[in-house]
Amino acid sequence: MVTEELTSNEANPVEIILKKRNKQELTTDEISSFIGDYIADKIPEYQMSALLMAIFLNGMTPTEIQALSKVYVDSGDRITFPENWRTVDKHSTGGVGDKITLMLAPIIAACGAKIPMISGRGLGHTGGTLDKLEAIPCLCTNFPKAKFCEFIEDNGFAIISQSDKLVPADKRIYALRDVSATVESLPLITASIMSKKIAEGAQGLVIDLKVGTGAFMKTLEQAEQLAKLLQETGREFGMKVSVVFTDMNSPIGKYIGNALEVQETIEYLSGEAIEDVHELTMTLAGEMLVLAGKAESLQTGIALAEKARDNGDALEKFRRFIELQGGNPAVCDDVSLLPQAKYKIPITSLKSGYISTIDSQRIGYALVRVDAGRKQLDSILDYSSGAYLPFKIGDKIEAGASLGTVYCNNAESGKIVSTEIAQCFTVSVEPVKKTGRIIRII
Amino acid sequence: MVTEELTSNEANPVEIILKKRNKQELTTDEISSFIGDYIADKIPEYQMSALLMAIFLNGMTPTEIQALSKVYVDSGDRITFPENWRTVDKHSTGGVGDKITLMLAPIIAACGAKIPMISGRGLGHTGGTLDKLEAIPCLCTNFPKAKFCEFIEDNGFAIISQSDKLVPADKRIYALRDVSATVESLPLITASIMSKKIAEGAQGLVIDLKVGTGAFMKTLEQAEQLAKLLQETGREFGMKVSVVFTDMNSPIGKYIGNALEVQETIEYLSGEAIEDVHELTMTLAGEMLVLAGKAESLQTGIALAEKARDNGDALEKFRRFIELQGGNPAVCDDVSLLPQAKYKIPITSLKSGYISTIDSQRIGYALVRVDAGRKQLDSILDYSSGAYLPFKIGDKIEAGASLGTVYCNNAESGKIVSTEIAQCFTVSVEPVKKTGRIIRII
Repeated sequence: MVTEELTSNEANPVEIILKKRNKQELTTDEISSFIGDYIADKIPEYQMSALLMAIFLNGMTPTEIQALSKVYVDSGDRITFPENWRTVDKHSTGGVGDKITLMLAPIIAACGAKIPMISGRGLGHTGGTLDKLEAIPCLCTNFPKAKFCEFIEDNGFAIISQSDKLVPADKRIYALRDVSATVESLPLITASIMSKKIAEGAQGLVIDLKVGTGAFMKTLEQAEQLAKLLQETGREFGMKVSVVFTDMNSPIGKYIGNALEVQETIEYLSGEAIEDVHELTMTLAGEMLVLAGKAESLQTGIALAEKARDNGDALEKFRRFIELQGGNPAVCDDVSLLPQAKYKIPITSLKSGYISTIDSQRIGYALVRVDAGRKQLDSILDYSSGAYLPFKIGDKIEAGASLGTVYCNNAESGKIVSTEIAQCFTVSVEPVKKTGRIIRII
Repeated sequence: MVTEELTSNEANPVEIILKKRNKQELTTDEISSFIGDYIADKIPEYQMSALLMAIFLNGMTPTEIQALSKVYVDSGDRITFPENWRTVDKHSTGGVGDKITLMLAPIIAACGAKIPMISGRGLGHTGGTLDKLEAIPCLCTNFPKAKFCEFIEDNGFAIISQSDKLVPADKRIYALRDVSATVESLPLITASIMSKKIAEGAQGLVIDLKVGTGAFMKTLEQAEQLAKLLQETGREFGMKVSVVFTDMNSPIGKYIGNALEVQETIEYLSGEAIEDVHELTMTLAGEMLVLAGKAESLQTGIALAEKARDNGDALEKFRRFIELQGGNPAVCDDVSLLPQAKYKIPITSLKSGYISTIDSQRIGYALVRVDAGRKQLDSILDYSSGAYLPFKIGDKIEAGASLGTVYCNNAESGKIVSTEIAQCFTVSVEPVKKTGRIIRII
């Protein structure tokens, strides 16, 4: 038939876009050929972005998501560890002040599990784990696969940056999603998260799924949908996935800023009590230890983790980690070796009452002005800048009293940020109930 | 606020895509800046195609469609004629064997109205008016604006090709829609049709909106939606728009093919009776004459049009048109001066019974094999090839008897096409009701 000739024998990219546009399920072959041809520069970006928008608006079935994840994984290198290592990793969907990875990895390693972490940088209102680590003088995150494995064998964990060879398809498509308004798509997020964790060799994965006004998932319902997709996809690749839903209605811990969050990590591993950080870290650690086969239950996992922190083993793991990756381990004993800001500008409360909401996203964006976060991909960070914000929802504050401190190297900008942050707190005359961070675990 | 700085002060293309993605209405400024920046190469194709897919799936409000049409018109030249000319044009949404424009324009001109026609070429299963005209030896369709106006003043009508300066935005965006599976979008179709008619200076417009399996609009409901959008948009630009819904369940007239359709036009203008062609032409002509102020009602319009055909005035207009545009007017007296095919291959009926369906789309695609239509934009046409298909739905046919003829210059291909076309007819043992072409006029 001539019509067949006209539409060509090969998979036609327009027909694949059209199929998804018409809400039909794509076959594994169609997904694989489209993404493969895109990566090989045989399909132009305008067709990829049209498909991304169609996926965004019409969704994908679990089978399609698995096919997409597989194409992502197959687009680059895949690291595998011995089966008996029972490697485990954590992924957080991102939050302001989220330094939990820095605390969690040494604790888990101290409990005898192995954590192969490949991490990213920050853009906009949230910081990236690599940026935080690089605040430690001389610490390096750019290592080849062989070194990565060597570090994990030596110290139980390593945290490196994603090489160009790991899931290059996701890297390219993520950049396109960013400029085509197709980021917040559950199927695309699922494939993006899972492909990286599969390729890095994690056998178990705990996901810290943030929910709330300051998070990407605004409602628990949305978050549950994503969790289901993540677990289904993990299962397909033989990976055990636990999801911990956590509250993201205020910044995590007391500090925001790269060096400040490393300082907070060292203080926490040295025994300082930081309520929400402790709750998050212990719950995630407990789940990870269960997945790694080091604990029978969440409770025994938490007990192991608490012990590893209390007896100083975790801090030793962190020290050794810094040493292995070329940094100065002395920061563990003297946090003043971390980059220090020139100015400390007080943040003054505008109102009296019980804190009812804290706009963490706006705080994150405000701190971009003092270079605690990146405006653009190539922005240069000021590791020393950030904020100290000890108050939580439910705390009582007084107008004119201190709400915290802005750390910066430009007093002018710092003052603007201080004013901006003060506006991020709303208060209520009636007492406000304090809530924990953990919403639910599945 | 820093967040504002981050998203920049200018209209951010990602935010415009995001807005449409989230089903929000775009402002006139947003549409204008996005399209303007795209045309100025400041917005890349991957953002345009993402927006097109979002428009395809989430639609546009009438206000958005008007804004888009205006941006299209403003992207290039706009021709205006004296108000008292009351120029009128026709647009057909396309069908196999649709040569009605060729008959209609000289008839309307003979009735004293002025028709500024800017037309296109064919791709796939339908032929383009320009391709049909260029089957006339030496006829040219590429004229500057001044000549176009001169021809209309002289002879009442002219048919030329779209210059690069007329609605360049639509030209570029249409090419992108074609490769991003975003063609069949009512808002985008509306802006595309209306902007061209507004820019060419038509003051009234009759739309021949094809409905049925062989047409782009499969159901009357879809067609009515499009009609509403076309009329609303026309009104906004001070253009009167009539819509004639016509049946497109079988090829129009008796011939398909470029030279063959010119021949059919000359035969019709010379007085030959061709039932469906006559019905279509007269109805559209009647409506056009009403819009042009030459008739009080459809009925008086039809009477005028019939007279102009019967007394030979229309054929004279057609002859003068060919002469003005450089072609050989002698074809009007001797159709054998048109390109002639070497082979005439019979099409034999496979079944006996009453014709119940004719797959005109498949017939159109089949004829691409003998180069009556284009496979790709740069395909070279064989003007002489095509088919003679005198039977209509409801006609009785006998297995083994003649169904028609394939005209071609390659006997091998012609035989394949003949077999293919025979398969495009289905029959029923019971008599099938014959129906007219006109469904409804609004």
